[in-house]
Amino acid sequence: MRLLFLGFGTVGQGLAELLIEKEQKLRDENDLEVKVVGIGDMLKGSLYNPNGVDLKGALEKAKAGEKISDLPDAFEGDALELIKATEADMMIEMTYTDIKTAEPATSHIRAALEKGMHITTSNKGPLALNFHELKKLADEKKVKFLYEGTVISGTPLLNLARETLAGSDFKEIKGILNGTTNYILSKMEEGLGYDEALKKAQELGYAEAVPDADVLGWDALAKVTILANTVFGADCKPDDFSCKGITEITAEAIKEAKSRGKRFKLIGKVWRDGDAVKGSVAPEEIDMTHPLAGIMGATNAVTISTDTLGDVTIVGPGAGRVETGYSALIDIINAGGKR
Amino acid sequence: MRLLFLGFGTVGQGLAELLIEKEQKLRDENDLEVKVVGIGDMLKGSLYNPNGVDLKGALEKAKAGEKISDLPDAFEGDALELIKATEADMMIEMTYTDIKTAEPATSHIRAALEKGMHITTSNKGPLALNFHELKKLADEKKVKFLYEGTVISGTPLLNLARETLAGSDFKEIKGILNGTTNYILSKMEEGLGYDEALKKAQELGYAEAVPDADVLGWDALAKVTILANTVFGADCKPDDFSCKGITEITAEAIKEAKSRGKRFKLIGKVWRDGDAVKGSVAPEEIDMTHPLAGIMGATNAVTISTDTLGDVTIVGPGAGRVETGYSALIDIINAGGKR
Repeated sequence: MRLLFLGFGTVGQGLAELLIEKEQKLRDENDLEVKVVGIGDMLKGSLYNPNGVDLKGALEKAKAGEKISDLPDAFEGDALELIKATEADMMIEMTYTDIKTAEPATSHIRAALEKGMHITTSNKGPLALNFHELKKLADEKKVKFLYEGTVISGTPLLNLARETLAGSDFKEIKGILNGTTNYILSKMEEGLGYDEALKKAQELGYAEAVPDADVLGWDALAKVTILANTVFGADCKPDDFSCKGITEITAEAIKEAKSRGKRFKLIGKVWRDGDAVKGSVAPEEIDMTHPLAGIMGATNAVTISTDTLGDVTIVGPGAGRVETGYSALIDIINAGGKR
Repeated sequence: MRLLFLGFGTVGQGLAELLIEKEQKLRDENDLEVKVVGIGDMLKGSLYNPNGVDLKGALEKAKAGEKISDLPDAFEGDALELIKATEADMMIEMTYTDIKTAEPATSHIRAALEKGMHITTSNKGPLALNFHELKKLADEKKVKFLYEGTVISGTPLLNLARETLAGSDFKEIKGILNGTTNYILSKMEEGLGYDEALKKAQELGYAEAVPDADVLGWDALAKVTILANTVFGADCKPDDFSCKGITEITAEAIKEAKSRGKRFKLIGKVWRDGDAVKGSVAPEEIDMTHPLAGIMGATNAVTISTDTLGDVTIVGPGAGRVETGYSALIDIINAGGKR
């Protein structure tokens, strides 16, 4: 399986590490021979060689903050030109998410699908805004359009819903979809004020300097939209759903809820209401006996309410270099390997 | 896909209900046409018709406590004769678990594999005692040997480990593998004594009149052995592992642990120790911040420690008629459907 990387930031590098480390395992257990033939990165430059590029070398260069285009097989041209020039079986789309325009990722994916490549992406934009167009194109081209990393990182929620729970009908999916806000709420329960807890999250790299996307619920909203479009088959945009973040929750309210056996969590959810699919993001008081209540810190967790098993909950990391890189590995094995 | 049911008790009936209810969904979404051609049950009698038996009729008879062999297509002969006579693509082995001998289930599975049928079973005996022999035979015959229902019912732990987490290495799998004991411990934390809590579990049908298999840890031990053999590739028997139940835990000990931020859980676990695979069942004090600590009542939960994602936990039902029936449906789709 020949791979083209688009985006060689932390997540792309995490995947590259896994591919190097697990080369033998993939061959032995999954009957999968992987070769990276192209890497494109806006800042680090691009490589292309139909017989395989120097992945280890590229990883070293990227980690040292140097351009990968200093290596042999440098490719001159932008991402779309690279896709056009590349003969590959699968494209790994890991460029930066722009949730307003879903570009340039959507154009990358469209171009690669047109060429008959399978896709894996961790980019929320194309999934939240252009899922059905891209899925249709993938179906026409008889290739797989996979996106495990777009919701709670490599924790395999989407695979679980699509494959492992096949045959089930889902009534609702709800969960803690954003680790940053869950970390802040956990710290506030320990006695910190909102500003202190946010500062601590920023120091640890969980929160950005401008934390709006997390604390106002927009990141969770994108994931809710993705779940609505992919798992529930809806055709929704983020604006279709109500969204409220955690900025109005006080330490007092957390304490008071606790005295009643409840805990505040920022909950993203999608559910069926007759033929309609509804979604929302908002803080909710979760009963202490619910599996979601015990999820503290930056961990994510999602409960799927099914007709076959009742509630099934999956708990795991919601971010991380190798963790999100692994989401692409799941998809690569799914597209080309034996399990 | 032509199915042969062996065992038509509560779990077999749960699966039959699902197959009837989801006939259209399986056809539309999984490209799977299912037909039950045979049913064998020691008490209820047997049916066989290569063009399909009357599944709805059999379900009604079984629910009314009547013999299914009153219906057309009655088959005269025991289970092995039925397997021999039947042309089917997959056998559903749901007879009673005998964890000491693994019979007659092992003989049923062996005979069906010899005839080239895929297998799904919820029977712990053959998995705990004869896994490698049966897996080898299945590989030789190029058919699937699946057993999702043997560990925590239909909650898809084994599928998650084998397929969804493909490419990962596992360091440890540990969890609450027995709902009855978890229910008893939960009730004891609410203030009931052990005897009272056990009585309540018996009233609700969670515990048997002779509760040893649950409270002494044997049921969890069988599941630990299955995880060791299937996920970790070991060749172990239940006797290879230490096993301690919950009968020595007092209400006072539970209270005292709680004051230290801990909660007693009966934990089954399997882990790698160098090249060896170790396992055990014993009560453990789990930190309240761990996802397993929050699992109360009859629910099951398992944490898989991976090299790719760190800890991933799955929480869901550990028993139930339709829930365990669904474990076979997962396997049927896996063997013959599209996902």
